[in-house]
Amino acid sequence: MEELLKFAPRPTGAGDMFQLLRDGQPRTRADLAAITGQARSTIAARIDLLMSAGLIAPAGEASSTGGRPPVTFAFSPEARIVLAVDLGATHARLAVTDLASNVLAETDAALAIADGPDVVLSWVADTGEKLVATTGRSLDDLVSVGVGLPGPVEHSTGRPINPPIMPAWDDVDVPGILQKRFNASVLVDNDVNIMALGEHRTAWPAVTDMLFVKVATGIGSGIIADGELRRGAQGAAGDIGHVAVPSAADVPCRCGNVGCLEAVASGQAVAAALAAAGLDATNSADVVTLVRGGDLAASQAVRQAGRDIGSVLAACVSLLNPSLIVIGGIVAEAGEHLIAGIREIVYQRSLPLATQHLRIVTSQARGQAGVLGASAMAVDHVLSPAAIDALIA
Amino acid sequence: MEELLKFAPRPTGAGDMFQLLRDGQPRTRADLAAITGQARSTIAARIDLLMSAGLIAPAGEASSTGGRPPVTFAFSPEARIVLAVDLGATHARLAVTDLASNVLAETDAALAIADGPDVVLSWVADTGEKLVATTGRSLDDLVSVGVGLPGPVEHSTGRPINPPIMPAWDDVDVPGILQKRFNASVLVDNDVNIMALGEHRTAWPAVTDMLFVKVATGIGSGIIADGELRRGAQGAAGDIGHVAVPSAADVPCRCGNVGCLEAVASGQAVAAALAAAGLDATNSADVVTLVRGGDLAASQAVRQAGRDIGSVLAACVSLLNPSLIVIGGIVAEAGEHLIAGIREIVYQRSLPLATQHLRIVTSQARGQAGVLGASAMAVDHVLSPAAIDALIA
Repeated sequence: MEELLKFAPRPTGAGDMFQLLRDGQPRTRADLAAITGQARSTIAARIDLLMSAGLIAPAGEASSTGGRPPVTFAFSPEARIVLAVDLGATHARLAVTDLASNVLAETDAALAIADGPDVVLSWVADTGEKLVATTGRSLDDLVSVGVGLPGPVEHSTGRPINPPIMPAWDDVDVPGILQKRFNASVLVDNDVNIMALGEHRTAWPAVTDMLFVKVATGIGSGIIADGELRRGAQGAAGDIGHVAVPSAADVPCRCGNVGCLEAVASGQAVAAALAAAGLDATNSADVVTLVRGGDLAASQAVRQAGRDIGSVLAACVSLLNPSLIVIGGIVAEAGEHLIAGIREIVYQRSLPLATQHLRIVTSQARGQAGVLGASAMAVDHVLSPAAIDALIA
Repeated sequence: MEELLKFAPRPTGAGDMFQLLRDGQPRTRADLAAITGQARSTIAARIDLLMSAGLIAPAGEASSTGGRPPVTFAFSPEARIVLAVDLGATHARLAVTDLASNVLAETDAALAIADGPDVVLSWVADTGEKLVATTGRSLDDLVSVGVGLPGPVEHSTGRPINPPIMPAWDDVDVPGILQKRFNASVLVDNDVNIMALGEHRTAWPAVTDMLFVKVATGIGSGIIADGELRRGAQGAAGDIGHVAVPSAADVPCRCGNVGCLEAVASGQAVAAALAAAGLDATNSADVVTLVRGGDLAASQAVRQAGRDIGSVLAACVSLLNPSLIVIGGIVAEAGEHLIAGIREIVYQRSLPLATQHLRIVTSQARGQAGVLGASAMAVDHVLSPAAIDALIA
């Protein structure tokens, strides 16, 4: 039956026609009839349905070749709102966006994920409600919630699976808990995956093969291949923090293994090394402050972390052949030292064919990558052809 | 425009309806109308078109709930044939298959890819023509040719790009040359990609995330993610032979770099090491013969090659989170020594989450993986909805 559905012709319903309009371009009924090959009367009926749901609206008149100019219609992204939630190890950022992921309101706070799902999700629900209120919109307009969590998540169920830094969250029904507070669909994914999605959608929509790397307390990545986020068999794809690197040799890692990338190149590892050398560094933010302040030892340590990360990314480049690597996470804010170290090793170690068109850049979405990705994930879900058909039925 | 096409509703033409029937199950007109949501008269007209093209045929009667039992229709894979070509460094295998990739005739021969495109492709065309003749089918029935080459290929154009072991093939228009001999579409890809496709389609169709690794003269891999072959930005994805491994340290590689996996763990590298130790080994096949003959040094060398390959695959597992790794290529024929070494390191070095459902197995398609994949690639092209619509128009 699965095989059968895979090959099933998609019904060309109103939800399908709506996908055409998601680019925001105004189109006439005649445009839509020409593109879809469907009867003018069918198109007209679907436009009426989408208009009454508020999802599209008249957008002025097209130029006419004679006679009364035809009316155009365009997507109304303000029709509904979504709540985007980016939860890190020690911080949380929330945004309310429209259906084009335009941020209408945003807030962030220090919040320990280790406080557990009851505390954290109550805070998310309370803060989310208040944030929606600040936009002047009603909770009735909220159609979906997108959540990023700092650990592996089974995307189909939204449940964390054996998350190392948030053990109390194992197998917790995050969507179920948030649905009790919001009458909306809830989508959950790993934080690095939503950052990759946010960066891809907002800064690099035309790039088909991209790797997003987060360098912060830990190290992780998100994979875009053939234009889509790839999560792997258990949703654990992109987990490069525990790949072995030569310079880590016998350094013990919090995962229980030795020689992992995270054990020498994460913001936490660099901070620990600098502290051991007598510098004032307890976390990634301190490392960034030291580098920005011109501290030579800190700059050298970040550059070496870049080389170590580069040694793993060289293998990723050979395996995935991306045309773009984006470096994000707080340590990327330290400036060029990190990315210079990464470039040095990637261009030395990867095959010329794989690097001849490869760019390695820092994140453009920066701290917003997570909420923009959480919003995109939520919007994709509620604007899918099937969801639109159900909404207007 | 690209964005627009991406969201364009697919027309539900005869080509789309045909996809439903590719599973070989017989269905009635009423079945097809129910699945597609289309009018009975539309379905009947499309069935007539597909029947007159020979692509489907009546397949007996369905059981009836009263009255005259309805006729069922099913895919006729014998309607057309394709030529599948698997070219390695020193061998070639050709097969003629039907549209379900059933092999109708097959042949192989020693052939040096280094002889260049004129010699090799003339041989392929001559041998292909003769092979078609042995099946009793006409060249008019040949609708597509699928070709695998031992080097990087730009899949969209079918041209090799800077192929290390076949420099005379750089940027050669392989499809154009073969199209002069066959009035058929020609699809070209890297040999390991078609092996991955062949193994996936024939042995593991339900697995969504799989890595196929070829261990032979060189080492390469093919990636299946979310059910599809992923080729990367330039078609170079899967090229793991030149990833650095600790045990290779300063060993020079034919790519010009040092420390590459291929330099210590390929069949060629193992043969060279055994020869240096006084054993009679000049290539991968000799290594397999020695191991099968119970030679202890050869078995130990193959096991160590497995460990080195495992150290790279551990990183691949962390990055891609496949549920299956298939080991193919001639060195896999040496028995359990290779795979035991691979398992040893992958299970030691990858995160528990990524390995808890991971299987590592030897190829089931074995020497046929390449031609079965070349056939599948060719068949997918000619049976796509658009191709079917064009064919019966």
